[in-house]
Amino acid sequence: MQNKKPTSFNLKTRIRIILDEEIALGPGKTDLLEAIEKKGSISSAAKSLGLSYRRAWDMVDTMNRSFKEPLVLGAKGGKKGGGSTLTPMGKQLALVYRKMEKKAFGAVQKEWTLVESLLNTKNRP
Amino acid sequence: MQNKKPTSFNLKTRIRIILDEEIALGPGKTDLLEAIEKKGSISSAAKSLGLSYRRAWDMVDTMNRSFKEPLVLGAKGGKKGGGSTLTPMGKQLALVYRKMEKKAFGAVQKEWTLVESLLNTKNRP
Repeated sequence: MQNKKPTSFNLKTRIRIILDEEIALGPGKTDLLEAIEKKGSISSAAKSLGLSYRRAWDMVDTMNRSFKEPLVLGAKGGKKGGGSTLTPMGKQLALVYRKMEKKAFGAVQKEWTLVESLLNTKNRP
Repeated sequence: MQNKKPTSFNLKTRIRIILDEEIALGPGKTDLLEAIEKKGSISSAAKSLGLSYRRAWDMVDTMNRSFKEPLVLGAKGGKKGGGSTLTPMGKQLALVYRKMEKKAFGAVQKEWTLVESLLNTKNRP
């Protein structure tokens, strides 16, 4: 007999705002906004999320180009990152995004209860 | 002056049911269920979706293992595919999945109206 990990299952509802085939805002970018607010710089935020500085900078650049005002200020602080902060619109969009996630997740709970009951959670290979 | 494509933007709400780190049901698998119901075989369904037969078969296999009853019957009809049909549970889950998508999308429309108004849809590079 083998020790098996218990079966895990969950529901994911992912929201993405697409502008000209780029993700203007999605789960990863919202995580990044929140991390920048918490850590005070893109480089620290990137580190805390396991992203390269370059990748995080590109994500900030996409967000800043995608909305009428930038979401992050101080984005061009060089390799060491300087300090970065969220603009009021950046803070607002991070909050609105999380609200959308909660609402979408909440809206499908009745159906999720049904689907969950049909999942084969026993006798898994 | 260049001719530019008009700016496009949209909201995507994607729902995925995860069982032991596999997608038991998501947008691609639901498309496949619907195509099998319409076309009557995995091979025709795969073709209509631009999937290889092997890929479609793997997706069916994952779905059939993930729920208490198979969602697709006749899945082992060989390379030519034979005929395949959805079981009652397969039909039910395709419908429930689309209902979840609609509900999740509907639940975030108020916030989406706000986000949409903040998108930089003009003077795009």
